[in-house]
Amino acid sequence: MPALSPYKADLDYSYAPGLFPSMECLQHRPEQVRRVLLHSSAAGREGADRLCALAERLHVRVEEADRALSRISGKENCFAAAVFAKYEDALLPGQPHVLLHEPGDSGNVGTILRTALGLGIGDVALIRPCVDLFDPRTVRASMGSLFQLRVHVYDRIDDYLEAFPEQRLFPFMLDASVPLSRALEQRPASAWTLVFGNEGRGLPPRFATLGQPVRIPSNDRVDSLNLAVAAAIGIYAFTQEGLPNL
Amino acid sequence: MPALSPYKADLDYSYAPGLFPSMECLQHRPEQVRRVLLHSSAAGREGADRLCALAERLHVRVEEADRALSRISGKENCFAAAVFAKYEDALLPGQPHVLLHEPGDSGNVGTILRTALGLGIGDVALIRPCVDLFDPRTVRASMGSLFQLRVHVYDRIDDYLEAFPEQRLFPFMLDASVPLSRALEQRPASAWTLVFGNEGRGLPPRFATLGQPVRIPSNDRVDSLNLAVAAAIGIYAFTQEGLPNL
Repeated sequence: MPALSPYKADLDYSYAPGLFPSMECLQHRPEQVRRVLLHSSAAGREGADRLCALAERLHVRVEEADRALSRISGKENCFAAAVFAKYEDALLPGQPHVLLHEPGDSGNVGTILRTALGLGIGDVALIRPCVDLFDPRTVRASMGSLFQLRVHVYDRIDDYLEAFPEQRLFPFMLDASVPLSRALEQRPASAWTLVFGNEGRGLPPRFATLGQPVRIPSNDRVDSLNLAVAAAIGIYAFTQEGLPNL
Repeated sequence: MPALSPYKADLDYSYAPGLFPSMECLQHRPEQVRRVLLHSSAAGREGADRLCALAERLHVRVEEADRALSRISGKENCFAAAVFAKYEDALLPGQPHVLLHEPGDSGNVGTILRTALGLGIGDVALIRPCVDLFDPRTVRASMGSLFQLRVHVYDRIDDYLEAFPEQRLFPFMLDASVPLSRALEQRPASAWTLVFGNEGRGLPPRFATLGQPVRIPSNDRVDSLNLAVAAAIGIYAFTQEGLPNL
């Protein structure tokens, strides 16, 4: 492995910055981890001790690397980073999916990954052009939750549709849509996919023909909801047993 | 008015960066606007034309200020900013409130303001120490929605409690909490307050005694949900007529 570079999309490895995301990486993707970087001031912190103990058990090298950490994270107070080889997952068919079409903000994507995992969704699809899944900013915003999820990035929406013909799609958009509570009535047992568009552009009109379009009832005093907020509301509504009509 | 400075909390004015937030400021707080800054490359954009037309109608001066805009926003592509005098609002009693206790991230606060407005909540309380409501980053993250809301910043939670003794509080926390769907059963007609803690620390234990603690059912695979996500789910559940037990 060459000297560590600041992250670039064409590297075959990336960084999970922070103690918590590093721990998630070691726990859930141990075979991908190449080494762990630790800041000299992290010693004695509870999270740092647990991280080092796990790395030792996994025979992963831990090295003190203050300057590499600030270079990688762009922050002064980054205590650790797991260096991991990129990997590819396949999604499980017949399970609840979240699909993000051309998302442009790494913070939004990371936050949505964290929400999906926390509310019990295990499979997430991204459609290009989109943010880099393994960009350390995405990893950090996800708090490392991407390491517990199956995530796959597709070049085109049609690739996803061909791979999962049985999924019932629920595109979140205004055209021809029904309110979220009505869409729940059409939710199949588990083979459903919540589809969210780009932050600025939303979904192309064609998506209205790919499934049951859904909207989150809101007033006209805001232009739209934040993408991670809309996804959170959609995921919450679709995963809560207590909601009506389920 | 002196030459425009980069934003500092102790200034008595601030900036609404971006065409959309500037428009919101002029539409909803016209009496606060001191002038509008426009980038030379904004001419001809639809939003810029509408902004200038409204400024003219309100007799607000518009000036080309490319360098001031990049200094103020820290971005190269900021097309406009409304310069506005800070102001104070009082909250309406007996209405749904959102209360943020010591929030530390301006992006989260802005996003929550936007969610609250979009889902029909008009009153938001912040408890210090917290992010600066008028920091341009908060204004930008809110997409200018703060100009349509009543927002008040309190020094202490007790100041809020004394001002609104009739509100029923729903603190989002784990201690002694009930799931969100059960909390809805206790929701009064309109005098309710959803309470969210700091991103890292959550709410102090005392809050469990101030109302009905609520939790969003989630699994133990994530440490917690993002603050703006948790607030979105709480606000959605409390404001949707279609939910059970309402």
